[in-house]
Amino acid sequence: MNNPTPSKRITLIGVGLIGGSFVLDLKHKGLATSVVGIDLNHDNLERALERKVIDAAFDHINTEAVTGADLVIVATPVSTLPAVCRQLSTVLENHSVLIDVGSTKQSAIHAFQKYLPHHLPYCIATHPIAGSDRSGALAAQFGLFQDKKLIICPHGQEDSESLNWVSSLWQTVGAQTYLMSATEHDGIFAAVSHLPHVLAYAYVNQIATHPNGQAYFDFAASGFRDFTRIASSHPAIWVDICLENKNSLLALLSGQQAQLAQLATMLKNGDADALYRYFDQAKQARDAWAALQ
Amino acid sequence: MNNPTPSKRITLIGVGLIGGSFVLDLKHKGLATSVVGIDLNHDNLERALERKVIDAAFDHINTEAVTGADLVIVATPVSTLPAVCRQLSTVLENHSVLIDVGSTKQSAIHAFQKYLPHHLPYCIATHPIAGSDRSGALAAQFGLFQDKKLIICPHGQEDSESLNWVSSLWQTVGAQTYLMSATEHDGIFAAVSHLPHVLAYAYVNQIATHPNGQAYFDFAASGFRDFTRIASSHPAIWVDICLENKNSLLALLSGQQAQLAQLATMLKNGDADALYRYFDQAKQARDAWAALQ
Repeated sequence: MNNPTPSKRITLIGVGLIGGSFVLDLKHKGLATSVVGIDLNHDNLERALERKVIDAAFDHINTEAVTGADLVIVATPVSTLPAVCRQLSTVLENHSVLIDVGSTKQSAIHAFQKYLPHHLPYCIATHPIAGSDRSGALAAQFGLFQDKKLIICPHGQEDSESLNWVSSLWQTVGAQTYLMSATEHDGIFAAVSHLPHVLAYAYVNQIATHPNGQAYFDFAASGFRDFTRIASSHPAIWVDICLENKNSLLALLSGQQAQLAQLATMLKNGDADALYRYFDQAKQARDAWAALQ
Repeated sequence: MNNPTPSKRITLIGVGLIGGSFVLDLKHKGLATSVVGIDLNHDNLERALERKVIDAAFDHINTEAVTGADLVIVATPVSTLPAVCRQLSTVLENHSVLIDVGSTKQSAIHAFQKYLPHHLPYCIATHPIAGSDRSGALAAQFGLFQDKKLIICPHGQEDSESLNWVSSLWQTVGAQTYLMSATEHDGIFAAVSHLPHVLAYAYVNQIATHPNGQAYFDFAASGFRDFTRIASSHPAIWVDICLENKNSLLALLSGQQAQLAQLATMLKNGDADALYRYFDQAKQARDAWAALQ
C-alpha cells in the first residue's frame, strides 16, 4: 500500500502502554514530527519526556495542547472518554482526526456521537489487540503492534479519507486491520478478553482470601503462573472495561457458572467418561487454536 | 549433602514426561546403570528406547521387569496406582524401594497400604511440582526438576534409610524437597493446580461451544493464550487427578461459584469501588507472589 501521509503533529491524551507505544513507532517510522502528551500524572509525564515518547507535556486538555494536531489519540481508561470528548469539543480544530484505542467500542461511539456530533466524520473508533499486564509510560515499547490485530468499528459517518489514513497508520506500525461493528466487537472481546480477566481476578482472590492461602501461594508453580498472569493487570483499567461492557460480561459470567455447575455434577457422580469428554473437547479446541497462532 | 548411593537398576512403570525426565537425569548423574520401562503403549516404548530414556521395554508388569530393581518408579495416571500395586505385590523383591510421582497423595498412600502392606516401609509417596501440558516419552527432558519443589508425604511407616535415599535422589536431580502430610498436600494442590486446570477447561469449553465461538477464537490474543495453556493438558491424566481429589476440588469449585456470584452482583450494581477493591486485591496478591518467584 502507499505510505500514509506523514502526521506532522500528534496529541496523545493518556500516555501509557498503548498510546505511548503507538507514537514511539509513528516517530520511528517518520510519521510524526512531534507529540504533545496530556496526562493527569506528572511523574508519568516526566518519564515519557525523558524517554522521548512525547516532546511536550500538559496535565490537562487545553487549546495549546491540541492546536495544530493532525491526529489526536485518546488512550485513557475507557470510562473517561465521554469527559475527554466533552473537553475536546471546545478546543478541537476542524482538521484534526480523533481516534480512541479503548477495549470497548459501543461506549466509544456513543461518546463521539454525544459530545462531538459535528466532528463525527473525523472520529474513528479503533482497538489494537496488544494487551499487557504492564502499564504507564515506562511500559511503552517499539514494535508492540507488529503482527497484532487492529479493529476499527465504523459508526457509519466516517470521512473515508480519515478512515483510510488511520487504517494506514496502524498498518505502518505492523498491525493487521479488521473492520467490524461495535456490537460484534464488544461481544467478542467480552468472551476472549474481559471474561478471562475477571475469572483470573476471581481465582486469585479465592486463593488469597482462603485461610490456607499462604501455603497455597508457597507451592504454586508454572500452571498457576500462566493462568493468573492477567490478574496482575491494572485494576482501574479493567473496572472501566467491565462496567462499559457489563451486559455482555454478565451473560458470559452466567454461562461460566453453568459450566462449573455441570463440572461439579460430573465430579459428584464420579463420571470419568463425561469428564474425559469435557476435558478432551477443551484440549482439542485449545490445541487447534494454538496451532494457528 | 553426601552423594546418594548409586541406583544400579531402575524399573520405570509409565514412561512419560515425569518418569522419563527423572530417569534421564539419574542416568546422566551416574545414579542409574540401566532402566527397564513398562508401558501399555508400544509406540511410546519405541520412542523411549530410541531416545535412550529406557534400556529395555515391557508392555506389562512381570517378574523379569522388576527383578533386581533397586528402585521402582510408578509414573502412571494416578487412578491406576492401586492396580499397579496389586500386580507388583506378587513380583516385587524385598529390597526394592517403590516410589510414585502422582499429583494426589492420599490415594497413593491408600494404595500402598491396601496392596503392599508388607512392603510399606519401602513405599515412598513423592510429588515433583514440574507439570507441563506436554506428555509421553518424547516430552522427557534433562533438567526438568532443577530448582523445582518435590514433596514427600510420609505415611509414618517408612524405613528411614529408604526415605532419605529417595529424598537424596530427587535433590541430586535439582529438586528442593519438602515434607508434608498427604491431607495437607491434597488440599494445597487442589487449590493451586487442580482447580485452575478445571477452570481453564471450563472456560475453553464455554468459548468453544458458544454459537459465536469461531469468531471468538479468531480474535483471542496473549491473555487468552496464557490463561488457557493448561487446558491443553492431557485429559485422561486430569480426569484421574480430579476424581482422586474430588472432595477438595468440589469444595473449591463451590468457592469459585461464590466468587463469581459476588462479581456478578458488583457488575449488576455498577459498583466501581467494590470492583476496584476486588481487582486490586487480586493484583496485589498475584504481584507479591510473582516477586518471590
